[in-house]
Amino acid sequence: MYEQLTDYILRRINVTDAQLSIILSHFKLQKTVRNQALLSEGEVAKNIFFVNSGCVRVYFIDENGQEATRYLAFENNCVCGLMSFISGKPSHEFIQAVLPGQLLAISRNDFYYLLDTIPAWEKFYRHYLENAYVINTGRLMSFITQSAGERYRQLLNENAHVVQRLPNKLVASYLNISQETLSRLKSKRF
Amino acid sequence: MYEQLTDYILRRINVTDAQLSIILSHFKLQKTVRNQALLSEGEVAKNIFFVNSGCVRVYFIDENGQEATRYLAFENNCVCGLMSFISGKPSHEFIQAVLPGQLLAISRNDFYYLLDTIPAWEKFYRHYLENAYVINTGRLMSFITQSAGERYRQLLNENAHVVQRLPNKLVASYLNISQETLSRLKSKRF
Repeated sequence: MYEQLTDYILRRINVTDAQLSIILSHFKLQKTVRNQALLSEGEVAKNIFFVNSGCVRVYFIDENGQEATRYLAFENNCVCGLMSFISGKPSHEFIQAVLPGQLLAISRNDFYYLLDTIPAWEKFYRHYLENAYVINTGRLMSFITQSAGERYRQLLNENAHVVQRLPNKLVASYLNISQETLSRLKSKRF
Repeated sequence: MYEQLTDYILRRINVTDAQLSIILSHFKLQKTVRNQALLSEGEVAKNIFFVNSGCVRVYFIDENGQEATRYLAFENNCVCGLMSFISGKPSHEFIQAVLPGQLLAISRNDFYYLLDTIPAWEKFYRHYLENAYVINTGRLMSFITQSAGERYRQLLNENAHVVQRLPNKLVASYLNISQETLSRLKSKRF
């Protein structure tokens, strides 16, 4: 159950076996069903999830009342409503399990406890925050600076598996466009 | 010259006098003139700036070719093209000194050297990243999820000094609206 998470951690930081055991002991197994809500707008984010299997998405409601998917986490990635997790304020985002799967969840309290007691965890969190900043900013900037066609081309180039693995409705939401616009883009040859 | 930065650091972390001296020695004074470019799109961000006096803005070009101001740093705040600083890739953002002033700049190399040699600096960076994530995500989300009127009301409630201290052109860019729309919003009573 902890093999993938162990690998994820050890590729980022050096810890002793004893420290690793303590870290892993704070991650609790959570099985999900399709479309299960993990965080709703207005709730405070209390967990970081590591995806053992399945797919989890983070989305929000845009100016036109449409769902816009900010992030898709497949296997061996972490996912969190990080703005709320950091600030302790209600989330503007929703988190949802897209597919049935297995998550490992660590609570905010346990996460900060590890920061206080295991020095290498501070470095783990540094990498996590840096990565989250770059990915999140890149995604939000793409909504503001790119046209629908540019976003679609970039998705095909960088993450074609999203288009292959998910239904059109979610791909359209990931691009923050309507399903009709997605169909038009797919019918063109890039 | 280092009084404000010293205060900024000591309000966030505990360090010895010797460590503080080492940290401060890596910040170099940089005087700016009005509208001085500090980072251009396509360059790699090589510095974090602490604003001793003046005002620095971070902006990018939106889908319609308009300048959108993501962040305004007044005195006693840090500012950086953080996505590029972290990734080492060319910036999508511009940084500009809006007013004549004094900055203290630390280079990327020196910043990461401090992370490797002064354990408390890791905690300083954690706070910096967390804060940057919350502020940046909040700003970009506001461009995507709020109408022009909602952004203007929020600015008046939370940062009225921006409206008071800066010319209309910059306020409009901060709201990512045209100057004409800003004039219309100002003429309404909220």
